[in-house]
Formats: sequence, C-alpha cells, structure tokens
Amino acid sequence: MTTRPMNGPITFNAQHSPMGAFMSFTCGNPGTRGGIGLQIGQPGDQEVFIGVIDGDRYADVPLKCLPFYIGAASTAMEAFTAESAGPSEANVRPDALPFAANEIKRFYSWATDTWTAGDLSFTVYTPFGAIPDPAKASEKEMRDGLRPAVVAHLVIDNSKGKKPKTGIFALNHARTGPRMLTDDLGKNRVGFAFRREAGVAAEVVDITGSGKADKPEAFGFMRWSATDGIREKYNPVHLLGSCPGIGFEVPAGKIYAMVLAIGSYLEAPVTTGLSGKYLYTRYYTDLTDVLASTLDAAGKLVKAAEKLSAKLETAPLSDDQKFLISHATHSYYGSTQLLEIAKKPFWVVNEGEYCMMNTLDLSVDHVFWELDRNPWVVKNLLDNFVAQYSYTDEIKVYTDAAGPVHSFDHDPSQPPPPPDAAQLSRPYDKKPGGISFCHDMGAHNNFAPKGRSSYELANLTSTFSYMTVEQLCNWTLTAGCYMAKTRDTAWLKKTKKVVAAVLESMINRGGEVGFAQYDSTKTAGGQEITTYDSLDHSLAQTRNNVYMAVKSWAAYRTLALLFRDLGDKKAVAKSLELAEKVAGVVADQAVDGVLPAIFEKDNPGYASRILPATEGCAYPLYYVKTGYAGVKLDKVFASPSEKRMYDALKEHTRKLLTDPEKRNVFADGGIKLSSTSNNSWMSKISIFLHVTRKVFGLDKDPAVAAVLKKADAAHVTWQTVGSAYWACCDQIVSGEGKASRYYPRIITSALWLD
Amino acid sequence: MTTRPMNGPITFNAQHSPMGAFMSFTCGNPGTRGGIGLQIGQPGDQEVFIGVIDGDRYADVPLKCLPFYIGAASTAMEAFTAESAGPSEANVRPDALPFAANEIKRFYSWATDTWTAGDLSFTVYTPFGAIPDPAKASEKEMRDGLRPAVVAHLVIDNSKGKKPKTGIFALNHARTGPRMLTDDLGKNRVGFAFRREAGVAAEVVDITGSGKADKPEAFGFMRWSATDGIREKYNPVHLLGSCPGIGFEVPAGKIYAMVLAIGSYLEAPVTTGLSGKYLYTRYYTDLTDVLASTLDAAGKLVKAAEKLSAKLETAPLSDDQKFLISHATHSYYGSTQLLEIAKKPFWVVNEGEYCMMNTLDLSVDHVFWELDRNPWVVKNLLDNFVAQYSYTDEIKVYTDAAGPVHSFDHDPSQPPPPPDAAQLSRPYDKKPGGISFCHDMGAHNNFAPKGRSSYELANLTSTFSYMTVEQLCNWTLTAGCYMAKTRDTAWLKKTKKVVAAVLESMINRGGEVGFAQYDSTKTAGGQEITTYDSLDHSLAQTRNNVYMAVKSWAAYRTLALLFRDLGDKKAVAKSLELAEKVAGVVADQAVDGVLPAIFEKDNPGYASRILPATEGCAYPLYYVKTGYAGVKLDKVFASPSEKRMYDALKEHTRKLLTDPEKRNVFADGGIKLSSTSNNSWMSKISIFLHVTRKVFGLDKDPAVAAVLKKADAAHVTWQTVGSAYWACCDQIVSGEGKASRYYPRIITSALWLD
Repeated sequence: MTTRPMNGPITFNAQHSPMGAFMSFTCGNPGTRGGIGLQIGQPGDQEVFIGVIDGDRYADVPLKCLPFYIGAASTAMEAFTAESAGPSEANVRPDALPFAANEIKRFYSWATDTWTAGDLSFTVYTPFGAIPDPAKASEKEMRDGLRPAVVAHLVIDNSKGKKPKTGIFALNHARTGPRMLTDDLGKNRVGFAFRREAGVAAEVVDITGSGKADKPEAFGFMRWSATDGIREKYNPVHLLGSCPGIGFEVPAGKIYAMVLAIGSYLEAPVTTGLSGKYLYTRYYTDLTDVLASTLDAAGKLVKAAEKLSAKLETAPLSDDQKFLISHATHSYYGSTQLLEIAKKPFWVVNEGEYCMMNTLDLSVDHVFWELDRNPWVVKNLLDNFVAQYSYTDEIKVYTDAAGPVHSFDHDPSQPPPPPDAAQLSRPYDKKPGGISFCHDMGAHNNFAPKGRSSYELANLTSTFSYMTVEQLCNWTLTAGCYMAKTRDTAWLKKTKKVVAAVLESMINRGGEVGFAQYDSTKTAGGQEITTYDSLDHSLAQTRNNVYMAVKSWAAYRTLALLFRDLGDKKAVAKSLELAEKVAGVVADQAVDGVLPAIFEKDNPGYASRILPATEGCAYPLYYVKTGYAGVKLDKVFASPSEKRMYDALKEHTRKLLTDPEKRNVFADGGIKLSSTSNNSWMSKISIFLHVTRKVFGLDKDPAVAAVLKKADAAHVTWQTVGSAYWACCDQIVSGEGKASRYYPRIITSALWLD
Repeated sequence: MTTRPMNGPITFNAQHSPMGAFMSFTCGNPGTRGGIGLQIGQPGDQEVFIGVIDGDRYADVPLKCLPFYIGAASTAMEAFTAESAGPSEANVRPDALPFAANEIKRFYSWATDTWTAGDLSFTVYTPFGAIPDPAKASEKEMRDGLRPAVVAHLVIDNSKGKKPKTGIFALNHARTGPRMLTDDLGKNRVGFAFRREAGVAAEVVDITGSGKADKPEAFGFMRWSATDGIREKYNPVHLLGSCPGIGFEVPAGKIYAMVLAIGSYLEAPVTTGLSGKYLYTRYYTDLTDVLASTLDAAGKLVKAAEKLSAKLETAPLSDDQKFLISHATHSYYGSTQLLEIAKKPFWVVNEGEYCMMNTLDLSVDHVFWELDRNPWVVKNLLDNFVAQYSYTDEIKVYTDAAGPVHSFDHDPSQPPPPPDAAQLSRPYDKKPGGISFCHDMGAHNNFAPKGRSSYELANLTSTFSYMTVEQLCNWTLTAGCYMAKTRDTAWLKKTKKVVAAVLESMINRGGEVGFAQYDSTKTAGGQEITTYDSLDHSLAQTRNNVYMAVKSWAAYRTLALLFRDLGDKKAVAKSLELAEKVAGVVADQAVDGVLPAIFEKDNPGYASRILPATEGCAYPLYYVKTGYAGVKLDKVFASPSEKRMYDALKEHTRKLLTDPEKRNVFADGGIKLSSTSNNSWMSKISIFLHVTRKVFGLDKDPAVAAVLKKADAAHVTWQTVGSAYWACCDQIVSGEGKASRYYPRIITSALWLD
C-alpha cells in the first residue's frame, strides 16, 4: 500500500477489476450494496462485510466492520417463519457495527486500495499490464493475462492482543443462489460462490514474522447475516443462507493475513447479434480453476500491484493528479470485455453505466492507454469497425435559402431543441458522403445489426443523433495512433482502401472550408452531433464547430502520415493542403483572442467559449512523442496557417482559463468545458489539461498554473464526494456526477504521466 | 376460453408456464411487474403492456391497457439527459391508461386465461400433458413435450369500427438487455428478446371470418415506454430502449388476432453440485428455434389448451373447486424443471418462492398428478433420492428420566421454542436408525452435497430441523403410488434392498408402538419435525404425532404391497402386523370422539385438534382406485384395529368440522388445519378434503357439506385476494398468503377430479 493515507473524503466506491472480464469488485461507499458485479454498469448487489471480532468467533462482542453494508441483519429468515412472533432467539444476534469514520484510513493508489481500522487492514490488489495477444502468447501467458479475478488481503494484527481476534469477509446477496464451494480448492482453502458465475476463495497465512509460523485454517459460514453465520455454533452453514463468508481466528501475539481470490466465470455465450463468449474460457476450465489458480499466484499478483502503485507514487505529479489517474484506471478495467467470436478475439470496452460496446468516441480516448500496453486490441477494434460497423452515406445539401433554423428562444445552456416541422421539411439535395463508422457496436451484450449503432437515431438535433463526422475523425485518429505506436505497415497496406475512402469522405463533408459543413442523410431532418452529446449548442452540432475543425485538422495531419507510409504522395499533399486550409479557417475566427464555439454568427453557439477547441492537438503530440511524425512539435504547426492556429488556440486557452469573469471554471474551481453549460466531462478535461500543458506549455504561466492546481483539487472532490457511489464518473453537472457513471473514459488522465 | 367470466375478484396473478422449463409468464395483478420470469420463485420484472389504441398507431388518443404495469412512462431516458430540463418533448407522450375495473372481464380455467376489455381480448394458452420419457419418445415428441414456450392471442375486434384500431403487446424491462430479434422467424413475423434467454415472437392473422382474409403485418418497436415506441414515427426502434413490443393495425370492419409465442432458452449448464442443463437444449437449437416453432404449432397448442379447459368445465365440481384446480395447475408447472445431468434426464420441481429442489414432502403430494401424466418422472425422482439424497443415521434414546422438555410458558399457537441448554445437554444412547431421505436436493439451482438437504439443520425443534421419519414415509408412499400406477416390477426388484431397508428403518424408529418414537441423531439436541414446519406443537414434532401415526400406518400398508410384489411373505406379514399395531394405538387415543394431535398428555400439542390426522388415508385410497390394493377400501380397514382407527378418524373429522366452537375453521369459513394455529396450508387442506369426501364420505352429511362448501369459497378468496400478487400460495395465515408463495403443491386439489 502507499505510505500516506488519503487526506480528503475517503468514502467513495472504487471498482477492482481484472482485465477483460467485465467484472468488478466494488466497495467503498458506506451504506450501499456493492461486491461482485458482472456485466453491469453499476455496483453489484451484495452487502460487503469486512470485519473483526475482538475475541473468538463466538465471543459476545460486536463484529466491527468497514461500512460497506446496509444493515448487518437480513430479513430473509422471515419468509420461512410466517406467523412466528419474530425470528427465533437462536437466530437473533447483535448486528455488525461499522467502524467510526475517524477510525478508518484509506490508502488509494494505482493498483492497490487499502483500508485500515483498528487492528484490521483490507487491501484489494488489481495489477494490470499487457493483455497478451492470443495469436502470439503461450497458454500460461494468456491465463495470467486474462485471469478473471482479483486478490485481496484481510490482515488482523493481534500481535499486542491477550486473547484471540477473529477476522471475516462475507457477502450478503440480494439475489438467491449463493453456495459454499465444495470442489477442491487446495489444502486449507475455503470458498463460496454465487451459482456458477462468481465466487471467493481464501486461505490464511501467519505473517507475524517472528517465532514459528502457524498454519492457520479458515472456516466457511453461510446464514442470513454475517453475524449469524460467524457465531452459529451448530449450523454455521445453512444452504438456504444469503450471506456466505470466510473467517479465521488469530491467536494472541499473532498477525494473520487472509488471502482472498475474488473471481468470476461465465462459460456460455454472453452476447447476441455476434455470438461471443469470454476469451478466458479458452484458458480456464471453471470457477474453481480461476479461484484456486488465483490463490496460487496471489503473491506474484500482490507484488505486481504494489510495484504499479509505487511507480505512480514516484511520478512527478500532484496527489490530486495521482488520485484521478488511480481512480480512472480502477474504473477503466471494470468496463473491459475480451470476447471470442467466431474463434477470434474481439475486444470490447463497455461504456460505463450505459454498457454501449466500443463507443468509438470513447475508443479514441482510450487509445493512448491501450497502445501503451496492448496495441493488438486497438487493431482488433479498428478492424471490427471496418468489417462490421462502418457504413457509406450521402450528405444533405439544403436547397432552401433559409439556412439552419435556430431557436434563440430556447435556453442556450440546454441542448438544441428537437427539430420542428419547418426544420424536418427543409428540402435538400443528396450528394456523395462516403465512409464513416457507427457510434458503437451495440449495448448490454447485444451487438447491433451490421452497420448500425445502438445509439444513433434519425431526425434529432441533440442526444442520440448521428455522429458521422465525429466518428470518421475518431477512427482515423485511432488508426494514426496505432500506426504511430506499432509502425504496423502490413496492417496499413491491408487497410489502404479504407484510408483512401476516409480522405474522400472527409473531403465530401468538408465543402469549401475543408471540414464538417454538411450533415449525413442518416440524420434525415436532424443534424449531426459531437461526442459532447448533451452539451449546449456550443458542442452539439458538428457543422462549423471549432472542436470539430481542430479535430478535422488532426485527422488530415494523420492521413498525411498514413499516406506517407503507403507511398501515396499525391494524397499526402492533399491531406496537408486540407490541414493547412482548416487551420487557416480556425485561426481566422478569433475575436479578441477568443475563438467562437460555432463559426456562425447567427448561431447561439457563437457566443460560447469552449476549451475542447484544442482537443485535436493531442494526436499530433502523440505522433511527435512516438517519433511517428518524424519532426518535433513546432514543425507540426510549421505552415503559416497552422502556426496561426496554434497561436490562436493557445491564446484562446489562456484567455478562457484566466477569464476574470471565470466563465470557464465552476465555483469550486473545476474546469467548465463550455462557458454556457454546467455540463463537464472529466475525461475531456483530462485531455484538455494534457494539451494545455504539453502542447501549449501554459502551465508555465503562473496565473494558469494556479487555475489548474485548483481545478485538479476540485476534480478530486467531484469524484470522491460528487460521485461517491458511482466509482468514477465522467459527466459532471456543477460538481455532481450526474451521468456517464461507472465510466472507463477518464483513463485519459493517464496522459498526464507522459 | 370458458364461457362464463369469473364472478369474484379477478385481479390476481397467474403463472403461465410450459412444462419443465422453470419459466413463467405471469400477469394479472394490477400495478406490479410480471412478465417472463426464469428460474425465480416470484413474478418477473417487466411491466406488461397489453393494449389497444382507438385509431392508427400514431393517433392522438390514449393507449388503453390491461393494468399490468406500474406506470406507462419509464424514466430511463433521464440517464442520458443529465442536465436537460426534462425529457425532450419528442419523447413525452401521454401515458398508457388502464381499462377501468368494470370494463374488464376474466375467464380463468385449467389451461386458458382470458381477459376481455372493450374491443380487446387477451388469452394465454398453457396446454399440459404427458412429459414424454426421453428414453422412449421420438425427437418430435420431445420437442412438443418440452417446448419452453407458451402461446397467447391478442384479438382486436374492429368489426364495428369506422377507422383503424391498433393492438400492442410490450414488455418494459427493469433489467438492461432487451433487443429486437433479427434472426429469421418466418414470413411476416416480428419478435423481441431479452439477451439470449427469453423472448416473444408474433404474427397477425385476419379472423374476421367474412370476406377475403387480409394478410396483416405486425411491426416491432422498442423505446423507453410502450406509448413512446408505438407512436414514434422516425425511430420506433431504439436499441437502447427498455420496452420492446409488437403492434398491429386493424382496419375498420376487421377482426385480427396477434398470435404470440412467449418462450425461453437457457443454453448453458444452470445448476451446481450436479451440473445440469435444460433437457430441452437437446431438442431446440436456440431461442429463435423455440419461438418460430411455437408459432408454427400455435393452432394445435391453442386447441389442446381449450380442450383441457373444456374438460375441467364439465367436471362435476363447483366453480370454486374448478378455480382452485386451475390456479394450482398454473402454479405447478411454473416450478417444474427437467434437466439433463450426466446425459440423463433429471426431474426437479422447485419449491415455489423458496426454490428448494424436489422437496420430498412436496414430491409425495405431487405424485398423484405426475403419475396421471408421466410416471417416469416419479421413478426418476425415487432413484435420484436413493442414489444422491439418502442417508443412514442412528436414533437417540435418552437415558435421563426427565423426558422431553416442554415449555408451557411458550405461546402454544407458535412453533416450539428453540432447545434450551437443558434440552441440548440431555444424555442419550445411540441405537441403529436406518435409511432415510433428505428433505430436498438443494436450492436455487445449487444441488446440495450428496446425502444432505439445503433445509435441515441440527439442534432445532421447529423450522429447519430434520424430517427423518416424515421423509422416510414420503419416499415409501411415493414408491407405493408409483408401483400402484405402473406395476413396474422390474424397478421394484432393482430397488428391493432399499425397500427392505425402509422397513427396518421404520421398525427401528417405531419402538413399542410401531411409529416415530425417537429422533434422529442428525437432530443432535433437537427433535424431528414434520412437513408442517412452522405450525404449532400439534404438528411440529414427529414423536407420538397422530398425523405421523396414520402416515406410518399407510407406509406399512404400502410396504406390505411392495413386499407382496417382491414375493417376501414374511415381510408382508411384518408390515401388516405393524400397520394393525399402529392403527390400534391411534384408535386408542380418542377421547370423546376426538384424537389428540400429540399422544402425550403433558405435551402442549395434546390439546390441539388437527385435521391432517387423516392425511395418510389418501394413499390406501389410491392403491384401491388403481387396483393395486387388490381390494376395495373397506378391506383396507378390515382388521379390527384398522376398523377402529377408521371409525375414530371419521368421527374425529366429523366432530372437528362441525365443532360448535368452530375451532377448525377460520372466521371466513376456510379450513384451519390445527385448532391452535392460524397457519393453514392449502395443499394439505386439499388432501384432507379429498379424504373427507372419498374415504369417509362425510360430504354426504349435510352439516359437513355446508362447512365444506363455505370452505371452498373462502379458499378461493385466499388466493384471489389474500395472495393476489403471489399467483397461488400454500401457507395462509388467517386468509392471507404469507409464505410458501408462488407454489406448486396446491396441485393436490386435482385429486378432487377423481
């Protein structure tokens, strides 16, 4: 564990997840359920009892617990004793008592999460690393990489005690079906499970470190509450119980650690549309195999986790920044799902609470993290989008003189209103559009039909509309980053036609100015939107949007590099020409050093001031960092128009961050992406901060640095207080996690480690 | 459907289930969730929308629905629009409106359940029959027998209309994962599903019956409410929606019926301990196969269901009796589960809300029903109990003078208190016990370890204690009934050793008087209980219990028949000797024509008057009815002591039923099994009534007949009002369904059809 406890609020949920199992062991928020959750975008449904009795298991003193449960006594017993005056005395015991807030400390880091209270300490270890490529890795490497389990330690320090103490770990289930594990887990090991799908196994070791080591034994129990189970003399296990657990007694003078494996195993196909099962089922036979082998490997896993946490602790970042990176990493892996479809691996990151699969505007944000560890999953994603979730559309060229209909009478801090009859009936010509990519591949384990997302609908102007240009850029940028990291020219050559189609599609949609001038016919009477889907006008429409403009510029810059590697000089020149053109358009929009969000004077978004204007700069930065650009950053902005855009974006950012009216910070100091909306996305703030520091070096400006420092602190509070139950939340409304909860995308904060 | 609507309350849930799929489509109770539930002892979690729009699908008039939903608008949309002022106008539509109570009629029968309201009628068809023996039946027979689906009709009568009407069926899901079916279901068919596990497919037919028949089309939709989905012009299907449905428009002058297949498919192993998958997976490839083939067979299934309902309607029973049989049958099949374990079929009836598997004291009650249709499942059960869930114990012979400890200060209407320290420490010798059978085979799809039930625990005196003698009798009686029905001497010969062991075990436990004098050492410091587990002292302990005595007498009578077929004359004589002995003991206990519940003057149960005293007589009656006894009923009670017992039981029953103090009826006239408890079990009342009529002919006594008639009416109200949500409830406390809900065991009421 890290050496310093957290200073601020510690009572927030964290996900503890292996890689690719769409599984999370969640705890931290007091008084709510959590525990093991599988394939859901929210905490599990178990009360988690982690506690200690100051005596043997039968001692008539309270079970003191970490506060991860609603109440220590369940009412399930009542169902069997309909007319009894109440549960019989034999079954009524004093409830568990939570430790007081001031007794508890938490040490939260990249791959470790430790709670201490009294003589108890509890740590969950979640080492992460490269998910091996099944095409290349050995079976052993795959087992290690895809182990659908995490390890925890429950340590009871009785070194100063005069009588035994008892430690317990138990999960009280809301659904029916917990059981004790009766398969052979190995000597002195005890376990329990929920049906076939998830479970816990444990063994106890003497870690006193002096004297002859004991060989302690763990014992299992299962009744209708943790306290009943632990203390029941005659029938500690009732197969009808809801609360299985594992306990151990620690003699006076000793320190024992219970090592826990917390894992899952879903053997059947889990997805529809494309029928997929977990790839780990290739390498593990069943839940018992998962749990037993995890206990076998526990020492190694703990060391790996501690090493990762230690690495983060030594990074040249503030505690607030380290916290956000840690929290984001915990949350990211809980959404990951590595499937096997048609005998091939299929990588999915689920979209937090929404469980949309491989939302492409999230994928493009995850790419930095994934490429640092397992570039093959990025290739897998790019190929799957091309094969299954791309489409070719046309664009709408309106033929009336009216121009887009703007409703200024609509609250400008809200998303655009739905299209009215006039908008829906505007006449248009259809012109060639080109290739683009779906918003996502489906939701909740249901793959969408080929060429279709679960999210996008026609005739809308805001949330749930199409993101055609946005996703076209996103696929391109993801491909660019993949190439930057791997230089996988063989893949690029195979994908040549797609790259060419992308350029053509960008050109068709770009009109005179080179970027996002038209909406896809897929939108019918609506308009395309950006990933900032529920934001105000400033980031709703793609047309003439500064965020889209800079992202398009980055996409052209990317295409130039890809065509370079494909040896297509003509296309390189065309791409660079368009990059310069778009950059010039952006630079030209600045008024008093600030860029309007929408380059249309009659648009409500013209008055908005948005920080994501700079987001696109993250990609050229990556190409420079990886050497893929072949030049330093200043050469990326070398052409006159690109230099002008660089200066404009830098000044825009500086002005917005130091705005005396503070229109782009919240009252608490947190970053407000749009001056006209209370919606903010932590993942996008993270990219923005990265660009602000690494592209523009604005953190060297003391005024800006002060703003950023205060912002980091506010962002921590957004998570620890504003989203305490939701274990890392992306969409924040005025400091409170309101949507995009339990989310993977905040992993963009790991860019700060660069 | 039956021709007469129900007279009394109609707003109660009913299960609609195929055979052996542990699946139920439940609806009927207003304002609560139901729909498709799999492997759970309670209604499903969907709002069920069955409705009609007086206009086309987009008409600006309310969707009028049967009242099977909480509210017609879901709030799932809100999650995506965190800071919006509210769901955008495009998504807000008037909610569904329920039909008023006085507009709705219900026709409820054995295999049909019809609701009519306005121009809408909705019927679920649940034909049942013989589950074929997979060892003998063809693949086609198995597909027909194990089809995990039911059929429903939604009829919209627009024959008198001047404009179109629109009918819809939709399920709004509480869990995430509904989807539209995209597989080929056949021409003009539309469907939706929940992930891989359950779904609905439909086609619409013109049943106007005059003019040229149309070929109508159904349309699918899925949004966040039924009203939103049906009326959405541009995007009727949103893959993120929670409420998939199917609709159809009916032109003026026409009557259309939408035929629905409502089914499930669980492909993976579902049980632990013994790894079992549904046997239907041998015969069906996937959910689409289930749904498409069910639509193909719908006509035949509807006819079969109507034939069954018609058969019941013509039975010489009262409407109240017919209702109870119908309701019991609906509930029974919802708990049935035919598995495949180690490549062999494995029959399970789950215990309603508790989901205990093959609770043997329920099995013995289900046996009559099952033997009339599929005796092979009874053999399967008997063999599985012998192979996996039997044990050999010892009995406790207390060596102190104290005798059992009775707490008279305990409320005598309550179950016995838990054993106190004195009871727990009473010294005893261990003597040979013998074979007996576990209470159950596990719970909630988790098979218990070999030789162990999920229910039974040591050191208890009431609920959750062992039922050693009770289950020994139950296995014996089940075997007797199986032989009576099948004369399967080959099986009996294979089971000879077990039958011999049963007699020895009965003798060892019977002491001087021949029945239940000792408790199993499994109970440790506790005592054995009967199936009436939460009743008062009168039916809690097995020792010297009149219910156990008569059941033991029946077991000895059974053993005599089994040994007869095995050619073991000595054992026949011994069995008959014991039967006569026990009968004499019972007869001797009568005081003023009434038998005490417990034959111990110092026991609180001595003063209790219980009707289940006669229950054991049901088995000899069955042996006579099937010809297995080889004699008429009077010869079963031919020996002097048995004649005396017969007379005593008859008089006991007559006196209790006509007791001027009405100690064995509730205020509403319902049967009170124990004079000293407000607990009553409908399944056991049904057997009692059967015996009262068919063994003792007491219904010919006008005073008794009046009591029984009033009781039947009360029993209907217990279900339709007292257990409205729980779709058939066994354990009733003063008219209200308090426990043993969603229960299979009331199928004993079908004995009345004899």
